[in-house]
Amino acid sequence: MTLDYKIFDLGDFTLQGGATIRDAKLAYKTFGTLNDAKDNVIVYPTWYSGQHYDNEWLIGEGMALDPAKYFIIIPNMFGNGLSSSPSNTPEPYNMGRFPQVTAYDNVKAQHKLVTELFGISHIRLVTGWSMGALQTFHWGAMYPDMMDLLAPFCGSAKCSRHNFVFLEGVKAALTADAAFKGGFYTEKPAKGLRAAARVYAGWGFSQTFYRQELDLKTLGYSSLEDFLIGFWEGFFLPRDANNLLTMLWTWQNGDISDNELYKGDYKAALAAIKAKTFVMPGQTDLYFPTEDSQNEVANMPNAEYVPVPSVWGHFAGGPGTNPVDVAFIDGKLKELLAF
Amino acid sequence: MTLDYKIFDLGDFTLQGGATIRDAKLAYKTFGTLNDAKDNVIVYPTWYSGQHYDNEWLIGEGMALDPAKYFIIIPNMFGNGLSSSPSNTPEPYNMGRFPQVTAYDNVKAQHKLVTELFGISHIRLVTGWSMGALQTFHWGAMYPDMMDLLAPFCGSAKCSRHNFVFLEGVKAALTADAAFKGGFYTEKPAKGLRAAARVYAGWGFSQTFYRQELDLKTLGYSSLEDFLIGFWEGFFLPRDANNLLTMLWTWQNGDISDNELYKGDYKAALAAIKAKTFVMPGQTDLYFPTEDSQNEVANMPNAEYVPVPSVWGHFAGGPGTNPVDVAFIDGKLKELLAF
Repeated sequence: MTLDYKIFDLGDFTLQGGATIRDAKLAYKTFGTLNDAKDNVIVYPTWYSGQHYDNEWLIGEGMALDPAKYFIIIPNMFGNGLSSSPSNTPEPYNMGRFPQVTAYDNVKAQHKLVTELFGISHIRLVTGWSMGALQTFHWGAMYPDMMDLLAPFCGSAKCSRHNFVFLEGVKAALTADAAFKGGFYTEKPAKGLRAAARVYAGWGFSQTFYRQELDLKTLGYSSLEDFLIGFWEGFFLPRDANNLLTMLWTWQNGDISDNELYKGDYKAALAAIKAKTFVMPGQTDLYFPTEDSQNEVANMPNAEYVPVPSVWGHFAGGPGTNPVDVAFIDGKLKELLAF
Repeated sequence: MTLDYKIFDLGDFTLQGGATIRDAKLAYKTFGTLNDAKDNVIVYPTWYSGQHYDNEWLIGEGMALDPAKYFIIIPNMFGNGLSSSPSNTPEPYNMGRFPQVTAYDNVKAQHKLVTELFGISHIRLVTGWSMGALQTFHWGAMYPDMMDLLAPFCGSAKCSRHNFVFLEGVKAALTADAAFKGGFYTEKPAKGLRAAARVYAGWGFSQTFYRQELDLKTLGYSSLEDFLIGFWEGFFLPRDANNLLTMLWTWQNGDISDNELYKGDYKAALAAIKAKTFVMPGQTDLYFPTEDSQNEVANMPNAEYVPVPSVWGHFAGGPGTNPVDVAFIDGKLKELLAF
């Protein structure tokens, strides 16, 4: 089998929390060609549980992210099963002992990939959905002179308290399964994964999505229960429980200011972002509500609030589920890339 | 110990689903005095997991529900631990074998209490929060000639698909605990109850409530985690798991038209409600969104849409947690009782 992605060896990679991942791996995929001026770069990080191929819906000929024009790099997030993760790290840092990784750690590793492997010093655009948006904000605050444009969609610069609580529910459901065994399971904690899926189901799509029965009428499921099993349980069951919990911790602890640069001064971190930015929440997203995006924009010198008019809740932003939303986001990215 | 409530013996009570609860009990408490004309009656059903004393915050001298003027009856819902429930029903219908009870069944039992025990033929007002609102709507559709006024708040006439999904998450988290043993636990499934509590926490209050840190600033918890343990886990842990699941089933299957009267014709059931009605959703309620209330009002001949302007999410409606919301609801009930 030929892998469709490559591995960048990070060596011994020390995390913000103090742990070191030995022989750390950053899995990535690129699209298009880096031009001689090295000024056609787009970085497009992954989302919660997504892998690089789950990002490809926004890339294509004639689209904003056009490989004929841009060199697009999709770095896989730590914990997603391809980059260093509980599921692929050897003892003693395996499974339930995999260290806590921050979005800051992820972006630091991605910065090494971009600068050291490709010799890139300037990025045209960083963009991403959900936790990809979290990483996008981090890029802007950690390397404010390095890019022209940012487009975080359906995500935030800091995990809100309500979002944290929503994720507590997902985590509690997953780990309530005795088969989880504190992260050292000998068989898949399927009951917990199914429970986490059902918890997530109410959050992922909006009340209006369910009221309009788009699970049936647009996505083609045969009943609500078929949607819960076929889409949601089917989504969670193939994923590794520890990987999910690693990324969940990254999400819950996401904060662009929680580092040596900004020392917790969240407004200073937002104010430091120089790039022209479109902050694009989904208008009916239940865990990244538009108010949080508006607060971000109010504290950024060069940002615009660009809500995605959609009833698809968080899935307005991906992964390419609703063609109308894809067209909207693609259009806004084109607008942004024209600056 | 003197009980602060009474028991109405329902005898052998056959449910919509076909099961019969032998020697069925309806626990209730009354306030005030039934006048000679028997025309000062208010019925005020309980909510999910609440017992009669959890309803008392809306009753008091000078309030709309004034015991000096009205004879107020609080009937406890089946499954709430006081009326017939998994936890207090003898074998063989105990624990995991307690039958599925509908809101229709509950209101039928309450109607027996009101008419047979008290000889009441006319009710001034039926009101209730959340599942109490569900029962309020049922009263209106099942006995449309029996009351003048209805005031369902933060609830609905039919469980929406999204609300159903939210409850699936709560149920899945609770039952993921191996100690639950299919409802025949030998010790409290504490891990599952705590998980269910954490799932519920994100739904109960709005994003804005958490953003404004009202858990700390108004409710006085010392941290978000303290709120999750102190308020939420503390709320769920004393409750019986099977009782919670019985009421959850009642909630998920709530539908004023799912009976022999309306045969699933939801709009006909709404249209049949004659009482002057204030439908009062919480403006930021995440599982009873205002759109559902507006749809109800649009199909009712004599209803007004009266949203509660609050950032307290579902808790705008109870149980007396936010004094400003209590004052608003009380004021609207006074307005309604003036008709």
